[in-house]
Amino acid sequence: MQIPIRLDFLSPETLQAQLVGQVCNLIRDGQLQLGSIVPSSRELSEQLHVSRNTVVEAYELLIEEGYLYTQRAVGTFVSKTLPEDSMRTAARDLPHRKPSRRRAVNLPLPHIGRGLPGLHKPTDPALPYDFALNRTDAGSFPAKLWRRLIVDCLDDAARHMSEYGDPAGIGELRQLIASFLGPARGMVVAPEQVIVVSGCQHGLNLAAHLFVANNTPVVMESPCYRGAAFLFESYGGKILPVAVDEFGIDVARLPEEKAKLVYVTPSHQFPTGVTMSLDRRISLLRWAARVGAYVLEVDYDADFRYEDSPLPSLQALDENGVVFYMSSFSHSIGPGLRLGYVVVPPELVVAATTSKGLSDNGLPWLEQAALAQFIREGGLVSHLKRLRHTYKGRRDALVGALHRHFGAVDISGADAGMHLCWCLPREAALAREVQAAARSLGVGVYPLQDSPACLYEHMKDYDRILLLGYTPLTEAQIEEGVARLTAAMRR
Amino acid sequence: MQIPIRLDFLSPETLQAQLVGQVCNLIRDGQLQLGSIVPSSRELSEQLHVSRNTVVEAYELLIEEGYLYTQRAVGTFVSKTLPEDSMRTAARDLPHRKPSRRRAVNLPLPHIGRGLPGLHKPTDPALPYDFALNRTDAGSFPAKLWRRLIVDCLDDAARHMSEYGDPAGIGELRQLIASFLGPARGMVVAPEQVIVVSGCQHGLNLAAHLFVANNTPVVMESPCYRGAAFLFESYGGKILPVAVDEFGIDVARLPEEKAKLVYVTPSHQFPTGVTMSLDRRISLLRWAARVGAYVLEVDYDADFRYEDSPLPSLQALDENGVVFYMSSFSHSIGPGLRLGYVVVPPELVVAATTSKGLSDNGLPWLEQAALAQFIREGGLVSHLKRLRHTYKGRRDALVGALHRHFGAVDISGADAGMHLCWCLPREAALAREVQAAARSLGVGVYPLQDSPACLYEHMKDYDRILLLGYTPLTEAQIEEGVARLTAAMRR
Repeated sequence: MQIPIRLDFLSPETLQAQLVGQVCNLIRDGQLQLGSIVPSSRELSEQLHVSRNTVVEAYELLIEEGYLYTQRAVGTFVSKTLPEDSMRTAARDLPHRKPSRRRAVNLPLPHIGRGLPGLHKPTDPALPYDFALNRTDAGSFPAKLWRRLIVDCLDDAARHMSEYGDPAGIGELRQLIASFLGPARGMVVAPEQVIVVSGCQHGLNLAAHLFVANNTPVVMESPCYRGAAFLFESYGGKILPVAVDEFGIDVARLPEEKAKLVYVTPSHQFPTGVTMSLDRRISLLRWAARVGAYVLEVDYDADFRYEDSPLPSLQALDENGVVFYMSSFSHSIGPGLRLGYVVVPPELVVAATTSKGLSDNGLPWLEQAALAQFIREGGLVSHLKRLRHTYKGRRDALVGALHRHFGAVDISGADAGMHLCWCLPREAALAREVQAAARSLGVGVYPLQDSPACLYEHMKDYDRILLLGYTPLTEAQIEEGVARLTAAMRR
Repeated sequence: MQIPIRLDFLSPETLQAQLVGQVCNLIRDGQLQLGSIVPSSRELSEQLHVSRNTVVEAYELLIEEGYLYTQRAVGTFVSKTLPEDSMRTAARDLPHRKPSRRRAVNLPLPHIGRGLPGLHKPTDPALPYDFALNRTDAGSFPAKLWRRLIVDCLDDAARHMSEYGDPAGIGELRQLIASFLGPARGMVVAPEQVIVVSGCQHGLNLAAHLFVANNTPVVMESPCYRGAAFLFESYGGKILPVAVDEFGIDVARLPEEKAKLVYVTPSHQFPTGVTMSLDRRISLLRWAARVGAYVLEVDYDADFRYEDSPLPSLQALDENGVVFYMSSFSHSIGPGLRLGYVVVPPELVVAATTSKGLSDNGLPWLEQAALAQFIREGGLVSHLKRLRHTYKGRRDALVGALHRHFGAVDISGADAGMHLCWCLPREAALAREVQAAARSLGVGVYPLQDSPACLYEHMKDYDRILLLGYTPLTEAQIEEGVARLTAAMRR
């Protein structure tokens, strides 16, 4: 990345002082957003043609003054809140009284969240062919059925709206989820082990709150999802990235030092899309039992496999109670529902349900009740079957169209999930350039660098990787979208 | 409190060893629940007729072994998870594979949640006259109107259910809340300062995550709500209790050491019900600006004042941006809705919205959309007016009945909110005895000690305090309930 800095080599002011001053100004003007990443010292010294030492010292001064902070192995960032004399509000002009000069400085903790997960992307009307990530197919949402379920539940609204429910979730839903997991994932769980949460992000918070404090080591797949990495950082966690290859997390590189948690997405790795092999699953579980780590198994795409049956979940394979499993209905029903669940080992039931009760006093009764009815009637199972069929068709359309237009393409993650990962050929433009060109023809594609991924910088060609979500588009839209993408790339 | 321990003064085994062994057994048997409080060393030495030193040493050994832990100024508790060789599951027999002997110990952080908030109390059919706390009136819930709003919103379900919304809340709802606060609470806020959360507990989590780490001082009203105290403890916070009198928190006792947060419920203190006086509000704000603390103003009962207009909120009075305000629709619409909001000072907007985005990927679209429509149509304002009228009638019925049956009664908090606080006369039985007697006649009343309150032990006569919620009962039920309560107390 480049930032707009120009150094004057002839000025009496030292290069370091100029650098410090210009970075401060960029922050105050908002050109460098609070919490955003800045170039590494190596990158910036190359951009500005100065010695790396100059940049390193300038950065050190800015860190001391509170304008920047570093996260080891991850990068250097603009602080979220700045020293009082340059405190700014968000972009708009917010009404606020001038702080009194006698007010003591009161900053949030130094390791607060570095940025948003990045899943919220409002629909862009300028992109009729938007290969958007993490969006389910609006056309497949069972609107009539869902309306009926909701309206049925509303008969009982007065009573349920007037009291606090069990923060761990309504009992019937926990039971239905436990029963569902038996046939669906080969997992034998008791309802008490199931806690209803609003999605995987919420489930991760539950785990983080129980286990992550200052400097707690958290092993993460690399690359991985920003929302998870930023979350653990925000609790003070120390991220230990371990590279992913075509079989999943590279277990040979797992650290032997004590880690509290290891975060994996074994069904359809985000963002690469690979499925963790059985061998790797078994090795990971052994490692976790040996070092005393809990495995955070984030399993939301298990429902969508297009080639073969899903592998057993880590939770089902585990014999030592080391897996903290979570999944969500965000992909199977829709992100607007805000329901998911965690399955904890028996010895964590008390701690986890207590933590959940203290995090919020439970989730809305209405969605939980409707979902319970949906599952009980068999609606979820049939819906998943239909959805899998629809998404397979769309996956086939995308893969077929890419092959037809581009020949042999370097893609991963096409065998499952809701998106695939495409490494553009060397002769093509960079991913961001392709995105810009595609946009001008109404097509939305997503460079890895601008997706909800992070910890990708070690990947060769990371700036050539595009993510394409195919679930929100019809097969015809996919065909047209890829045709336009081809046209855009030819320019 | 007493625990079932019997020491044998003639045994060759030392008293200390007997004590350690019996406490361990009580924990393993479940007679001492995980996370529950144990008697202080003074109490236990008095109960067992042994020197205090014997108990202190026994406790120290149990703490070293991991069976107990202490929270300074609060008490000593059974650990939430025990050393591996005596690890237990929850009461029921959960299916789990025997942990391998080679599994490394992996315990959650030592300061995880001490217990649940205690708001979830399923309706008890044995109590037709239940003066339950924190329950809104099911009869007043606008069921028809709510159904219409929900069904209207469902027309748009497919689209909204298929994408992630803004984690800070849907824009229109934030705007409507900001506009509502102007006339309702004299607060001038921009929509960006409003973040939609699932209730005050969730709002507290937002604040705790930003500010509370190991040993962070958090000043709290004493007595206060358990859910808040346990939450701050679970982040490692150090609770500094400050007593409440008839004017609210005693500002003269606020510590001069640096505190990060001060938690107050100024509209209707929980549990005493007192309203913070204007003087105290101003003094508290001055103190907060001086020491650099944020004031967590938990303001959910401002809507229900029965005698006069509400005082300006701390947020409205503040000139230094020190107030982190929160309120909830749990009392005005119902706890099953799970919607509330925080209002943060401008300089915290970025940090708070980022933290919210990392905590969960937003709240359900459906309830937010229905609520927005409810507010926009003017429904919320009329509903509050009606509810205030209904609750005033019930408040009058309760106070009147208590006076008629008991003469001059020592009650507080009757001028606002949804419950009042009654200190039983000396000649009456203790609160727990009254609860038991009342139960036998189908009446539910709540001793302070068994309510969602904590930090009450310094109050003289705390074991004589009963909390009575009047909002879920009709005036006739209130009359009958008090008559039966009187009969129960005569025995």
